[in-house]
Amino acid sequence: MTAEFPSAQIIREAHERIKPYISHTPVMTSATINRMFNCSIFFKCENFQKVGAFKARGATNAVRSLGEEILKKGVATHSSGNHAQALSWAAALAGTKAFIVMPANSSPVKIRAVKGYGGIITLCEPTLEARESTLQKVIEETNAVEVHPYNDHSIIAGQATAALELITDIGSLDMIIAPVGGGGLLSGTALAAFYFSPGTTVLATEPEMADDAFRSFRAGTLIPSVNPRTIADGLRTSLGSLTFPIILKHVNRIITVSEAAIVMAMKFIWERMKIIVEPSSAVPLAAIMENHIDVKGKRIGLIISGGNVDLSNLPW
Amino acid sequence: MTAEFPSAQIIREAHERIKPYISHTPVMTSATINRMFNCSIFFKCENFQKVGAFKARGATNAVRSLGEEILKKGVATHSSGNHAQALSWAAALAGTKAFIVMPANSSPVKIRAVKGYGGIITLCEPTLEARESTLQKVIEETNAVEVHPYNDHSIIAGQATAALELITDIGSLDMIIAPVGGGGLLSGTALAAFYFSPGTTVLATEPEMADDAFRSFRAGTLIPSVNPRTIADGLRTSLGSLTFPIILKHVNRIITVSEAAIVMAMKFIWERMKIIVEPSSAVPLAAIMENHIDVKGKRIGLIISGGNVDLSNLPW
Repeated sequence: MTAEFPSAQIIREAHERIKPYISHTPVMTSATINRMFNCSIFFKCENFQKVGAFKARGATNAVRSLGEEILKKGVATHSSGNHAQALSWAAALAGTKAFIVMPANSSPVKIRAVKGYGGIITLCEPTLEARESTLQKVIEETNAVEVHPYNDHSIIAGQATAALELITDIGSLDMIIAPVGGGGLLSGTALAAFYFSPGTTVLATEPEMADDAFRSFRAGTLIPSVNPRTIADGLRTSLGSLTFPIILKHVNRIITVSEAAIVMAMKFIWERMKIIVEPSSAVPLAAIMENHIDVKGKRIGLIISGGNVDLSNLPW
Repeated sequence: MTAEFPSAQIIREAHERIKPYISHTPVMTSATINRMFNCSIFFKCENFQKVGAFKARGATNAVRSLGEEILKKGVATHSSGNHAQALSWAAALAGTKAFIVMPANSSPVKIRAVKGYGGIITLCEPTLEARESTLQKVIEETNAVEVHPYNDHSIIAGQATAALELITDIGSLDMIIAPVGGGGLLSGTALAAFYFSPGTTVLATEPEMADDAFRSFRAGTLIPSVNPRTIADGLRTSLGSLTFPIILKHVNRIITVSEAAIVMAMKFIWERMKIIVEPSSAVPLAAIMENHIDVKGKRIGLIISGGNVDLSNLPW
């Protein structure tokens, strides 16, 4: 029943497809951080990506993979986070509409951002059931195509292009570390490493407070989180039926970190690197700071997933 | 009595001298900001410089220009800001000591930072008189050489290398906009534009609340600020006898901006560009946002002076 994983060819095609629209983001290093941990860390800065997060890659690939007639009807999703913004942005750029179902308790900052990118918002009760049923209603009314935030091979192939660029730009890496929420970024990263840098191990990092990937990986079966309460809001979602098998096969290890370490790592990146990263992006460095990974002497790729934070509500 | 301005040759030599130690910082752009103001702005990101500010350039040039015997005794300054950190860092890297006089009411964050770079701190009363007399005492005791934060040609030549890199990397620019405090960065920028990009005009931007450069420029004579209270802490100092003549001759215009515009521009840069800049760095964009500059269709270099902010005490 499992569909084939996206191939190397599919990921290269995704990169060609989205290249004209997305940013080829820079890779940054910090002499201070490298000295402190005695390793070389290459930060792939998707906080500088369009809409401020890697999600622009998957959304663009998904939207641009649709046939012209289907695309005309628009795309739809339920999301309160970066995917909502990314899909709205990608749809507008492709000349079509994005219908976004958002829980009514979403922060005004996020609602404004989605509107700013041209998304057409339907608010609903803040439960998964209400989100899904409202989305179904919107789709019935509009005939728009649902674009899932992560459980979709065109999304996974799109997210894989971040690691593809990192590998192309930096060359040999001992490991790549990525955060994991729904698993779109992680499964894409794992496939990119497997195809384009076979000697590179892939580690996933996850908040202890939203450790469904850790538990699912250990059990070999999907065990979703129920209402996880981590500060890393991008990582509250649980793995999907398409991302999980890729992760099971191609990820070496999943590491969980404390909330305190996430906040500490986030502030540390802001102070030392002078870049704005969201809590989810700090999770990989948190794992290094908590000594969960043997990094000594290693060349490490680290995916900074995004930089969308509410500056008026910082966790320190 | 006025010494000759630093020559093109002196600035090129300064760049060669400091290149092994400083960062060749990136130039960033923002499609959103360019669209909004209908121009092309090239942000020279000295927030990514060593010690988080352009001051690393001047300090390194000053320290590395000293003879070996003199250097051994160490360097000294009074400063509560980025110069104190930059000089401590540059001295340590050159294998010598930095004696830093700081007002006792300096923020613990800044005192820790200077200590962290190896600076030897003497605290004093928070008055200019106490700072100067304490520095004299320290110099008498140690035989260290004073390195002034801006009123020094080796500092000016060092700061000029930021604009030199910008011009080299980006090519033709209609204008360069820089903030002005003591005038080290501005005078260096103006000389670099004059020598290496003669068609480029240089504009200075300054807080209304610390407008000594604006008033001095208009009067043609130095009129220092008395206890200015702007949030742009790097710009509270007044022009010096060496920076002022260069500015008078080579700067086209000085523009003042409100405190509200500085905070708005700073938050805007954080949100849109995902980089951390200090209030002083936001002053040039504040001038654009307040419509003081005709930017339409222009190619504009903008110097981001630094990114050292106390993250626990933000102005919003």
